[in-house]
Amino acid sequence: MASIEKIVLVLSGGADSSTLAYLTKSQGHDIYPISFNYGQIASKETNSAEIIAKNLGTTAKVIDVSTLKQIFGGSTVLMDKSMAMPAQFESKVIVPFRNAIFLSIAVAYAITIGAKKIIYGAHKSDSPFYPDCRKEFVDAFQDAAKLGTDEDITIENPFYNFSKADIIRKGTTLKVPYEITWSCYLEEEQHCGACESCNNRKNAFKEAQISDPTKYST
Amino acid sequence: MASIEKIVLVLSGGADSSTLAYLTKSQGHDIYPISFNYGQIASKETNSAEIIAKNLGTTAKVIDVSTLKQIFGGSTVLMDKSMAMPAQFESKVIVPFRNAIFLSIAVAYAITIGAKKIIYGAHKSDSPFYPDCRKEFVDAFQDAAKLGTDEDITIENPFYNFSKADIIRKGTTLKVPYEITWSCYLEEEQHCGACESCNNRKNAFKEAQISDPTKYST
Repeated sequence: MASIEKIVLVLSGGADSSTLAYLTKSQGHDIYPISFNYGQIASKETNSAEIIAKNLGTTAKVIDVSTLKQIFGGSTVLMDKSMAMPAQFESKVIVPFRNAIFLSIAVAYAITIGAKKIIYGAHKSDSPFYPDCRKEFVDAFQDAAKLGTDEDITIENPFYNFSKADIIRKGTTLKVPYEITWSCYLEEEQHCGACESCNNRKNAFKEAQISDPTKYST
Repeated sequence: MASIEKIVLVLSGGADSSTLAYLTKSQGHDIYPISFNYGQIASKETNSAEIIAKNLGTTAKVIDVSTLKQIFGGSTVLMDKSMAMPAQFESKVIVPFRNAIFLSIAVAYAITIGAKKIIYGAHKSDSPFYPDCRKEFVDAFQDAAKLGTDEDITIENPFYNFSKADIIRKGTTLKVPYEITWSCYLEEEQHCGACESCNNRKNAFKEAQISDPTKYST
């Protein structure tokens, strides 16, 4: 087994990053989850992140940067309740450069705690739609992080070659409690079952042929 | 003259970024300043940024991400009043990867307002000490920004080949009101005159052989 590393993990509390947390922990590493309230409607996802972190014997650092709504509000349906929520991908579900903002802060966190690696859950099913989920971006951002800190920082999206269904399959073997994770763009009692993110989640379980424990409104 | 561009400018309210604001405006561009309260002791620098922006006929977007103190507090003297303030550069004046955090948010802001260029005031006198002020970092971050947004984003630090004294010389020809700008790491009535940043400011005016309008306590 490779040596134990101290790893900062961007943990949204969704299915992908929660699976990555379980996987990384199962590999014996010390994980330092970091979660963001960035003004998203579904801010309860950070509660899921906190429970997932606790289950893994650690604590999620939850950072409130919800003032970013000053920038993003009105441009993305994830933050603006007055915009119609699409069932499939449309550009208005993109929060531009969000992962770079999260990774920048995660790098700063890593430096302050003496960690050298940062990971996040971006995967193959997202990369056609979200530029900041692509491996080319991650590699370029890693270069910038090395140069911008003078440290030998590694940034990875270990699921870059996993579809969302592959992730669900992997997580099921790791006993990830998916019923705790939160994917919905809305903030209702249970997953709406109709937004792009709920549909992606439903489809991933279906494709993986694994029973979906999520309670959906529709 | 080159065509007029819409440019997001990271404006701290210090001498360097304020000079860059005046220079860019003098070139005829439309500037969109963005300033950050990131938990720094000297949060009044954002007031300077607001006045500089107003003088130039625009408004600074001031974003409060002071919750970042949860990460940086205790690691940098710029945020922790209990640490002794050095008169010269020491690593504890570094806020790790700060410029990447600011630039990431600035890129997001640029995308939402349809700007393609982001600039900031990092210069040659800073680059030996601060990795995220170096041109290599800026170039790498620009690559990451292009890949992470699918947009032809440009990120520049136009003063990369200017010393701080060169900046003061340039700004004086542009009538930058340096008495309004704020460089001090502390938050007293006037500049302390003793911290690294005050000393850099004093020395730059001295080297440029320009009368320093700043009121220092010592």
